Amino acid sequence: MVTVNPHYAKLQASYLFSDIARRVREYQAANPGADIIRLGIGDVTEPLPPACIAALHAAVDEMGAEATFRGYGPEQGYDFLREAIAEHDFRARGADVSADEIFVSDGAKCDTGNFQELLAPDARIAVPDPVYPVYVDTNVMAGRTGAADGGRYAGLVYLDGDESNGFVPPPPAEPVDVAYLCFPNNPTGATATREQLQAWVDWARENRALLLFDAAYEAFIRTPGIPHSIYEIPGARECAVEFRSFSKTAGFTGTRCAFTVVPRSLRVWNADGSPANLHALWTRRHTTKFNGVSYVVQRAAAAVYTPEGQAQTKALVDGYLGNAAIIRERLAARGYACIGGDNSPYIWVRTGGMDSWAFFDKLLHEAQIVTTPGSGFGRCGEGYIRISAFNRRDRVIEAMDRLSSVL
Amino acid sequence: MVTVNPHYAKLQASYLFSDIARRVREYQAANPGADIIRLGIGDVTEPLPPACIAALHAAVDEMGAEATFRGYGPEQGYDFLREAIAEHDFRARGADVSADEIFVSDGAKCDTGNFQELLAPDARIAVPDPVYPVYVDTNVMAGRTGAADGGRYAGLVYLDGDESNGFVPPPPAEPVDVAYLCFPNNPTGATATREQLQAWVDWARENRALLLFDAAYEAFIRTPGIPHSIYEIPGARECAVEFRSFSKTAGFTGTRCAFTVVPRSLRVWNADGSPANLHALWTRRHTTKFNGVSYVVQRAAAAVYTPEGQAQTKALVDGYLGNAAIIRERLAARGYACIGGDNSPYIWVRTGGMDSWAFFDKLLHEAQIVTTPGSGFGRCGEGYIRISAFNRRDRVIEAMDRLSSVL
Repeated sequence: MVTVNPHYAKLQASYLFSDIARRVREYQAANPGADIIRLGIGDVTEPLPPACIAALHAAVDEMGAEATFRGYGPEQGYDFLREAIAEHDFRARGADVSADEIFVSDGAKCDTGNFQELLAPDARIAVPDPVYPVYVDTNVMAGRTGAADGGRYAGLVYLDGDESNGFVPPPPAEPVDVAYLCFPNNPTGATATREQLQAWVDWARENRALLLFDAAYEAFIRTPGIPHSIYEIPGARECAVEFRSFSKTAGFTGTRCAFTVVPRSLRVWNADGSPANLHALWTRRHTTKFNGVSYVVQRAAAAVYTPEGQAQTKALVDGYLGNAAIIRERLAARGYACIGGDNSPYIWVRTGGMDSWAFFDKLLHEAQIVTTPGSGFGRCGEGYIRISAFNRRDRVIEAMDRLSSVL
Repeated sequence: MVTVNPHYAKLQASYLFSDIARRVREYQAANPGADIIRLGIGDVTEPLPPACIAALHAAVDEMGAEATFRGYGPEQGYDFLREAIAEHDFRARGADVSADEIFVSDGAKCDTGNFQELLAPDARIAVPDPVYPVYVDTNVMAGRTGAADGGRYAGLVYLDGDESNGFVPPPPAEPVDVAYLCFPNNPTGATATREQLQAWVDWARENRALLLFDAAYEAFIRTPGIPHSIYEIPGARECAVEFRSFSKTAGFTGTRCAFTVVPRSLRVWNADGSPANLHALWTRRHTTKFNGVSYVVQRAAAAVYTPEGQAQTKALVDGYLGNAAIIRERLAARGYACIGGDNSPYIWVRTGGMDSWAFFDKLLHEAQIVTTPGSGFGRCGEGYIRISAFNRRDRVIEAMDRLSSVL
């Protein structure tokens, strides 16, 4: 008799964004004329940069001609893209990462979800709270947790974020093997200073732990001195994997390209204490379960690193950061405390005592604005909502006008 | 201390195609002038069909304009593609599959590799021998096997294929929960008749087992009466998942699009014997660990189902089948027995008593032809090589001329 993976049954019934979609659908059905403005899910709205569009057209033409057609590419990505990434995203910042440590993929969600497969089944995992749900759910599916109770899974270590630590939790005191970190943070928009990241790297090296560092939003960092990569921190090459994405940097949410950095110098172990090779293990996983990103998409991603691509993607991100500044200012003017939005597309707003879903419903019903309830990201998110700056400028201004009138 | 997944250490040291690539590289380094003809790895050589190229260009233009730009799509794929698949690939053949049972992905390798995550850790797995290595390796990584001994992993049930059963093994006598099947077969090129598939479906229903049916090569079936889909077999909707791909059908190996069919009527169970819902579980996995296929690629895939796309992809496949016929004929003329190549791009050739790697080396060194040693696909592949029909017609003829002179 074929029986199923028993761990899926532990998963909380529904995924946050499905819940939101259902409430919005129900509201829209009841109010067919409503002009709903979506500042919920973090999806970009601006078209692909012209440099990427030109690269896509050129690559499509290559695929249509026998002399230039490409079949299977290297699973890890083409050298033209890996070299450009290593040069522009890392070496230009003094971070020592080589092209063969970069694994091109179709999404940071996939990579952050899949990476846990390389860890021992009983690895002790720490996650921040609030947290991007994929880190948690994929460990639940893999059987590294017990049942959920009050929104928390037995066996996971939760790192509480709150206003006292600026939503940048310090390393845990208890023993942990692996910690997920995300800066600029989704959902809070918080960033980590060099000193805070150094403390995490020092902790990981002392405790022989692994950091899984999600830097999908690094392009939004504008304040000088805030690290864009964990590899700007001495020692990180021994203890950290980094996840990056073109989704928010260049508007690739519907185009699909990302990458993961797995240094050759990472220190991990077999159960008997002998050294293991995480780069080799990820190579094995990547080549066995993945077949590379579409060639035309890799060409589009490489175009991000041309001078025009760099200017265009900077302008794209500047536009969303301009939205974020407007959201912050308008909320502050109504007396609402905010975190994020300066080096991040997300603004994390204290609801002023209301529960997150009640505040979500209030904004949906009274102002026709979709946000994301903070409690959907964990217990510490209760009493907050996340507002996304991903929308057209005129829509953001309209949303803030409505919001000002109901708050 | 972070320790790694202990099961990866059980994997045989290297992946078949890496071994081949190394031998070819070494030969080429020693013989820089050699004109090597590659009939090894199953990668297409013809450009994308014009209908797909036109659809790609149009979709790229959409992505460059604000009014038509697409961000995140549905993880399961856009309805325009799922509906076209359901209509043309299934309902047109009398197979009852609805669009919401189709999950679009970036590759059948990924899907066949990932699907085992939904199964119980102790599920008893049967694989054919010879076999596409991904089915085996991904179960090893997941811990469903013991160590390898003589090329076989403890805990797996191997279904021997040989000339007595035409490389279509019958269902096993011993208890098994899950069986991988692949027709037209990679590597042997064998196809299964309606009666043979019916026997498998009947066995699965009687034994409450699950069939994982890989139909990535169905477009090569030309003989009337051979089923293209397992869902042409009564009862299959209760016991079979099917994997499909655009890679070989439409030359998408470097473009990346595939799909998996998970019927809502599948019968699987929880450990306590209560019914489980595999469609819901795959939905959860797909939405948690995957973010959809690139929009432009989905448009290209949908173009396969237009009248022009159907004619162009048929011509593409006919071209490769023409190559296969030439390979079969030329080998038969030299007295070499072959399987496959009639409804498949692969020709499975008896080496006439030589061991597979020795025959591989002979063809590489004496005729500068790359093939794939049958033993790389399992114990039952010893004494065979696989020749792929994926190449230009003139190169295939040149290869057969050389081959005839050395055999």
